[in-house]
Amino acid sequence: MPERQLAIQGTDADAGRSRPVMLAIAGDSAAGKTTLTKGIVLALGAERVASICVDDYHRYDRDERKELSFTALHPDCNYVDIMEQHLQLLSLGHAVLKPVYNHANGKLERPVLVEPRDLVVAEGLLPLSTKVSRGCFDVGVYLDPPEAVRRVWKLKRDTGKRSYTSEEVDAELARREPEAAAFIRPQKADADIVVSFAPLEQRGESPEHSPSATILLRPTVPHPNLVKFITEDVREAIHLKLTRDEDGRPVDAIHVHGYAPAARTRPIEEAIWADLGVDEPLPASLGMVDGVRSESLALTQLILLYHVMQNRSFALSRQVAHG
Amino acid sequence: MPERQLAIQGTDADAGRSRPVMLAIAGDSAAGKTTLTKGIVLALGAERVASICVDDYHRYDRDERKELSFTALHPDCNYVDIMEQHLQLLSLGHAVLKPVYNHANGKLERPVLVEPRDLVVAEGLLPLSTKVSRGCFDVGVYLDPPEAVRRVWKLKRDTGKRSYTSEEVDAELARREPEAAAFIRPQKADADIVVSFAPLEQRGESPEHSPSATILLRPTVPHPNLVKFITEDVREAIHLKLTRDEDGRPVDAIHVHGYAPAARTRPIEEAIWADLGVDEPLPASLGMVDGVRSESLALTQLILLYHVMQNRSFALSRQVAHG
Repeated sequence: MPERQLAIQGTDADAGRSRPVMLAIAGDSAAGKTTLTKGIVLALGAERVASICVDDYHRYDRDERKELSFTALHPDCNYVDIMEQHLQLLSLGHAVLKPVYNHANGKLERPVLVEPRDLVVAEGLLPLSTKVSRGCFDVGVYLDPPEAVRRVWKLKRDTGKRSYTSEEVDAELARREPEAAAFIRPQKADADIVVSFAPLEQRGESPEHSPSATILLRPTVPHPNLVKFITEDVREAIHLKLTRDEDGRPVDAIHVHGYAPAARTRPIEEAIWADLGVDEPLPASLGMVDGVRSESLALTQLILLYHVMQNRSFALSRQVAHG
Repeated sequence: MPERQLAIQGTDADAGRSRPVMLAIAGDSAAGKTTLTKGIVLALGAERVASICVDDYHRYDRDERKELSFTALHPDCNYVDIMEQHLQLLSLGHAVLKPVYNHANGKLERPVLVEPRDLVVAEGLLPLSTKVSRGCFDVGVYLDPPEAVRRVWKLKRDTGKRSYTSEEVDAELARREPEAAAFIRPQKADADIVVSFAPLEQRGESPEHSPSATILLRPTVPHPNLVKFITEDVREAIHLKLTRDEDGRPVDAIHVHGYAPAARTRPIEEAIWADLGVDEPLPASLGMVDGVRSESLALTQLILLYHVMQNRSFALSRQVAHG
């Protein structure tokens, strides 16, 4: 993230403390945050990652929310100041006692201890919503599927795991829309990476299957130099395009087509990974969802891993310098 | 407290933030912590005091503790590091999301937001147990009733409100004794004020009625100059004695006899209060327990209020200086 600013500071005693790499994954409900987070945890190993869902900072339980005029997306419905505090503490290498919201029954429950590891992933509705929270992260990602795709994903999940009817899901989407516009989507402007998984209908892709993706890499953090590895030839199933962002600023856009064959994408992934110079192999699990590999998801995860490994090296060298 | 040391520091943004006065009330189970805390809250007004029980930082619920080889008194049975963190944050003027242990059913529950007010009182088993926690407090109190008195109080409470049999209470006291010796009683050495309520048997006092008290005022913090207000004549029902502490260091000991008449103690309290020079009357509620006034409790509360008001003035003047 461009600014790193903490309202709480560590002391000299913290100088030797190992600080985690901090990664935010923001996006609306059913935008794919959990899938992406799980992939990162699987690739790095659970023992190296502390992943938290910042929706656990809900101020009210489901029953209490029924009495309120706003939804769970509203900052007033969340302990945003405590989320900020915990993110700052984690980024300083301190453990926190994180609240727990039980999605199954809608209750707030006994908190759990979260100890920072090499990487802290904070995913949820509002991790990039305030200046202080943004200041805690090394890299911020915003997941931006088209609304039609997100609806399909949300219907699939909420009518399945969460036992709602499709009418209930649509009513909830409509009820949340003004707050999604006001509080969730503005986070897109503050992300370093914006990922939009979207099926190419002319290719017969559907949201249920590994869709094509556009990955925007904003020059707010040092991304891998992809020009070396990805062609700018738009006829290729994976290609890089120098373009302009919504605000007119220059940005790199990677397009990965859903039909990109692993034979084409895997060598690119190997090359990006090798460029990092880390002493471990490219994780084999990249892009796997329910036993099927998604090339677009694999490349997204790889780019996030690149940032984690790169920041980790910095963190380790900083620590050695202090020690 | 002699040392004030925080592992977390505020930033420049905290300079204008109002910091609370921090008061610790430590002691074993049924030592009178809640009674003393309630009196302080009543005297100052609930809107000016945030009182927390640090036993809420229990790591395990009652069922889980049954499987363990130690009791709730053991530091390993508590999130001591999180207690330290929250005390530091409160002392810097930040709100915390405090865990909640339900004494009625032994369960850990949904946490609550605690916002620091003019005064934060942290009472419980272990608030003075670590260097970092001690560093958070302006004044630390240890309640030190004789074990026989504490047993009477504990029996009365636990066979009443908490529905145990007297055999169960005695078994629990025995089971806890090694950990009380190892972890609770050592806090006495680090307190600024040690209060021992103990009935004078030769006067027919019983633990059930407002007993006599000895209040040790250690020169670790600036106490009111009591020589001006309390006689050193030991024949008086309230008197001051220059003596030596357990470690040989000089200490003031106030003795307040259970039979001290309000006509004798009230003018002393008025004089100590007037010495503070604050623009509000001496609270009328001092020393009241279940509608009966205890002179020893009243004087203990008054001395704590003196420290609160004195530190509050300092805090306010510091704040103005920053502003």
